[in-house]
Amino acid sequence: MKSFMGRNFLLMNDIAKELYHEVAADLPIIDYHCHISAQEIWEDRKFKNITEVWLGGDHYKWRIMRANGVDEKYITGDAEDYEKFRKFAETLPLAVGNPLYHWSHLELRRYFGYEGALNAETADTVWELCNDRLKDEMMSARNIIRRSNVEVVCTTDDPADTLEFHDLLQKDRTVDFRVLPAWRPDKAMNIELPGFSEYIERLGNAAHVNITDWKTLLKALDKRLSFFASLGCFVSDHGIDYVPYEPADEKTVDQVFQKALSGAILQEKEVRIYKTAFLLAMGREYAKRGMAMQLHFGTKRNNNTAMFEKLGPDTGYDSIGAAVPYAELANFLNDLEKTGELPKTIVYSLHPGDNAEIETILGCFQGGEIVGKMQHGSAWWFNDHKNGMRAQLESYAASGVLGTFIGMLTDSRSFLSYTRHEYFRRILCNYIGELVENGEYPYDERMLEKLVEGICYYNAKKYFGL
Amino acid sequence: MKSFMGRNFLLMNDIAKELYHEVAADLPIIDYHCHISAQEIWEDRKFKNITEVWLGGDHYKWRIMRANGVDEKYITGDAEDYEKFRKFAETLPLAVGNPLYHWSHLELRRYFGYEGALNAETADTVWELCNDRLKDEMMSARNIIRRSNVEVVCTTDDPADTLEFHDLLQKDRTVDFRVLPAWRPDKAMNIELPGFSEYIERLGNAAHVNITDWKTLLKALDKRLSFFASLGCFVSDHGIDYVPYEPADEKTVDQVFQKALSGAILQEKEVRIYKTAFLLAMGREYAKRGMAMQLHFGTKRNNNTAMFEKLGPDTGYDSIGAAVPYAELANFLNDLEKTGELPKTIVYSLHPGDNAEIETILGCFQGGEIVGKMQHGSAWWFNDHKNGMRAQLESYAASGVLGTFIGMLTDSRSFLSYTRHEYFRRILCNYIGELVENGEYPYDERMLEKLVEGICYYNAKKYFGL
Amino acid sequence: MKSFMGRNFLLMNDIAKELYHEVAADLPIIDYHCHISAQEIWEDRKFKNITEVWLGGDHYKWRIMRANGVDEKYITGDAEDYEKFRKFAETLPLAVGNPLYHWSHLELRRYFGYEGALNAETADTVWELCNDRLKDEMMSARNIIRRSNVEVVCTTDDPADTLEFHDLLQKDRTVDFRVLPAWRPDKAMNIELPGFSEYIERLGNAAHVNITDWKTLLKALDKRLSFFASLGCFVSDHGIDYVPYEPADEKTVDQVFQKALSGAILQEKEVRIYKTAFLLAMGREYAKRGMAMQLHFGTKRNNNTAMFEKLGPDTGYDSIGAAVPYAELANFLNDLEKTGELPKTIVYSLHPGDNAEIETILGCFQGGEIVGKMQHGSAWWFNDHKNGMRAQLESYAASGVLGTFIGMLTDSRSFLSYTRHEYFRRILCNYIGELVENGEYPYDERMLEKLVEGICYYNAKKYFGL
Repeated sequence: MKSFMGRNFLLMNDIAKELYHEVAADLPIIDYHCHISAQEIWEDRKFKNITEVWLGGDHYKWRIMRANGVDEKYITGDAEDYEKFRKFAETLPLAVGNPLYHWSHLELRRYFGYEGALNAETADTVWELCNDRLKDEMMSARNIIRRSNVEVVCTTDDPADTLEFHDLLQKDRTVDFRVLPAWRPDKAMNIELPGFSEYIERLGNAAHVNITDWKTLLKALDKRLSFFASLGCFVSDHGIDYVPYEPADEKTVDQVFQKALSGAILQEKEVRIYKTAFLLAMGREYAKRGMAMQLHFGTKRNNNTAMFEKLGPDTGYDSIGAAVPYAELANFLNDLEKTGELPKTIVYSLHPGDNAEIETILGCFQGGEIVGKMQHGSAWWFNDHKNGMRAQLESYAASGVLGTFIGMLTDSRSFLSYTRHEYFRRILCNYIGELVENGEYPYDERMLEKLVEGICYYNAKKYFGL
Repeated sequence: MKSFMGRNFLLMNDIAKELYHEVAADLPIIDYHCHISAQEIWEDRKFKNITEVWLGGDHYKWRIMRANGVDEKYITGDAEDYEKFRKFAETLPLAVGNPLYHWSHLELRRYFGYEGALNAETADTVWELCNDRLKDEMMSARNIIRRSNVEVVCTTDDPADTLEFHDLLQKDRTVDFRVLPAWRPDKAMNIELPGFSEYIERLGNAAHVNITDWKTLLKALDKRLSFFASLGCFVSDHGIDYVPYEPADEKTVDQVFQKALSGAILQEKEVRIYKTAFLLAMGREYAKRGMAMQLHFGTKRNNNTAMFEKLGPDTGYDSIGAAVPYAELANFLNDLEKTGELPKTIVYSLHPGDNAEIETILGCFQGGEIVGKMQHGSAWWFNDHKNGMRAQLESYAASGVLGTFIGMLTDSRSFLSYTRHEYFRRILCNYIGELVENGEYPYDERMLEKLVEGICYYNAKKYFGL
Repeated sequence: MKSFMGRNFLLMNDIAKELYHEVAADLPIIDYHCHISAQEIWEDRKFKNITEVWLGGDHYKWRIMRANGVDEKYITGDAEDYEKFRKFAETLPLAVGNPLYHWSHLELRRYFGYEGALNAETADTVWELCNDRLKDEMMSARNIIRRSNVEVVCTTDDPADTLEFHDLLQKDRTVDFRVLPAWRPDKAMNIELPGFSEYIERLGNAAHVNITDWKTLLKALDKRLSFFASLGCFVSDHGIDYVPYEPADEKTVDQVFQKALSGAILQEKEVRIYKTAFLLAMGREYAKRGMAMQLHFGTKRNNNTAMFEKLGPDTGYDSIGAAVPYAELANFLNDLEKTGELPKTIVYSLHPGDNAEIETILGCFQGGEIVGKMQHGSAWWFNDHKNGMRAQLESYAASGVLGTFIGMLTDSRSFLSYTRHEYFRRILCNYIGELVENGEYPYDERMLEKLVEGICYYNAKKYFGL
């Protein structure tokens, strides 16, 4: 029996151990996609207790507490922090096989030095230990980033954002890691949502452009994108249900846009026309600027109306949404490729059954002398666990060139999530080690080192031009 | 090499062996979903030979015989019982990797004491051994249930059924296990099928309600549900192609219902409107009564018209039907949740690729202080095998709280199928044992015991309020 | 650690080794589906260098080079053969886990005697070794086939083809293997594509039938099919996006066909009507003649317009296309079955998530005293790798009778691809060996031998009536 989450956790063969400990473990982290706050880094936030860190905003944890029948009072309600922590501690041992079991214990080990298992009996010990440690200067936002060996953090930012904290951080000589904005223009794309025209006005104000039509919208976006680029932005992100392809001429797009601004309700086809045009326009812009485009899709959001009304979005009520029309993704990419305006692209689906189809579509758009131009992004959100990561790696390997993969990102809302890179690296080393042990790949130490350090660090560095 | 289906069958590590033999093996069975006949239990049916038990109605076995080119005469035709058994015995060894290979040999071991392998050479020995054993009093329906350590059996019953045998069984003091009805109102839901209005009349007669419209239909169903409840019914079951969501006001629903009663042909949208309203009404009723709702979907039935005309339904001509619109399932559950009328729900899909999507949708409706309120049901029908069960467990674990899972059901038409609980328990113990052996979960004996006995027995007991 | 692709490559247990080396390895090959050229066999083609053999037309290899950022000049462009080979050799080590890594090294081992790993350092050695060997008489097309122990090769041929080289080969007494045509009438089915009416004219000329309507089309096809049969053709192949089912009466079909001949643009429904009628007519014909029907689907072709215009089809720009309406496949098969005109059928999907659904649909049409009449074809194209093959085997086993499976085909465009049969056989033996080692199947040497030799060779021989 292996020790519980010990030194060789997830490393099931000798080559894996060698590759992880001697190559992967100490490489820096480029976290090119997360949801942490530049302001909190600037302010070097500290946390009053483990409940604030762990249960303050983590809907993964809320979901398992709900599944265990815990009253919402102890989840998002007004119970005491200690009580909330206890309920979580009681739930966790039942979540055998859940990635949260591993995430939580990795964080306890790496940041709090706790090597045991969290459960009802150990809850008090862990509560005190963690809260004590959180008082330490080493547990401030910046120091967590530093001790996690993070080189680059990309936050997620709206085109209308001021990015003032990115600016401050970049001017501060004591900040020895980079915090860069990422461009996420979902609000400008979601033409069918309430508040769209108000948002467009806000965007116009930010860009000092009076947005009245499609042309002025693009002008405003272009100005903002230049501003983002001036602060080092090299990557965008789009969170969408699916990639649409409903091409239309510019005049039609303009009519749809102006109709939406006037407050009229759009038909579904009109929404699709606008979103297609928007995404194509963005893609061309990224290609021109050498930026990478991230496409996240396959979701169905806010499934529980009653809880949405109480708690708002991102509170644990989203699901995988399968009906992704992949023909449209292929046609969308083809449209950009036809004119040589396809940017570097990273595609993430939330449905684990879509891996092979994504790989084969992306394989049709590789080329242009960019190594790994089209990337199948690392297993994401509900798939962000041992099986999901392994499946993504095997799928990437089977249809593509795994040695060009840019690897892991945290997608995280917490400063403690850098251990997910450790998790990924262990799974990666175990997979490659297994192939070597089984005689499926030669034991060529230099090549293995190159593969592992590429996927963990150097490929992303090169891909993003860092 | 492990011995063929020996003591440690499917138990591939030491913890698994410990958990199975010391915890799981001797727990009672709550078989909350099967298709055996209350009448046959009442009459304490005995079987004349192994062909009657095994090949009388088991379309799983028929399918593999057909795939092996066996003439239909030896399957559902008029060949002698011995000849039919021989043909099956000749086919079975070719079905390497098929769950039938394991089901059949488990039954031979546990009920007939035969430890060898069935094939053409051993067919005669097995034929004689089994037929001899079947003469024994211990092989009557009731005694098979007793010796299988079954505490509760839920049959599958139509709202118009008299439940007379359930009544008789419950009054009989010699019956030391419980046989309860389960509510399966498919005929009242399948408005598009021939015979619908005749069925509604029959339902009305059973309820002593003159069903003329939607309101009287609900009244009749309510009365019958009360009758079922009076005999201990705590669970419903719906066998559907997919969960529809086409909401409409009551007046529209009423019009559609009356149109169907008049014998007119309905449009597809009308069918969807009626079925949505029917399922919502049932769901509310279950919530009010504390009953659980089972939803079985993802099927395409009666694919082979020629054989359907010869043999009727449930004869081995159904398949997985993939095009399940999961957005509708989410919207359906949300509709009930909005008014606080979502009952405990167990969702089963027949498509193995749907596991993750189902888990994440169910996760959006957990809560209300019920432990594991929304359940992803155990791997079912065509997935009811080692890989399928393992995949369901891993998927449940990855997105939910496996420790709250209510576990296995037989879904069986045979009295010998209780060995499927053994099969499930072995796979469960092997999975959990593997996590411990690999250092992914701590070796905490008390907690492991709690997990295993919960999933095998206590969770279902608590969930159903037994 | 196992040696890199050594004697026991992919054989992870003792039974597997025994089964592979003592049973599977030396069985002849029936390659019932490939894309090699009868003319090149007749001419006994030789190759000037390894680039010609490996990179001349293999779009699998092109894809991984593109994914690695190699300039198209070194792929399909005018770079020197040596330079192209170098670029491939530099890319290959990065493709860890890709089937090409295994295919390429198996070919180096079996045909060129090279036991090392190909990479930038060894490229020159391998280049010289291979080119030297290619000069040897033993490396001519016919001798490669002979030394690969190939008994039957089925090429892929258009109904209008002359089959002159098949005829010549069959008359040549020195050819000690069989080269048979396979019937692939895609051009006659693809009514919506440009050039359809020109093709129909060509078909009419080949058949000496003036094709003016549906009836004369069928007559021409019938004559050509008889001609194919006269040269030993026993199998057809259809490469389609999906199996359509849009039944219509003959008059409507005839109108659609004549409309297409007149050059008018068809509506989508008309295309579906024609294709359904065409496929049904073909199916009936195959049933009558005892031929097998192969259905390949689940593709989306020519995704990259820019490259299509430069390089044409089959150059590495196809993908999996998931939206397969399986209800239509079931209805299509049922239509043929209703009148007793369903031929032996082999179904291949390109989407790995479709395995279980395909198995269960096929299970509804087994019977008619043909062993394994409905076959789920071996993992194909993008799934033609270790995981894909294993998944297809497990899926076949779980829902059907694996012992009746007709096994592997190369689907290849290269004379060196026969090693894929070795690859498949190793994976098969490993799977069956694993079941035995785990106690899931008895260690019955005679039965195991029968299973393995059946799936590797005898089942196909019997199925196709060879």
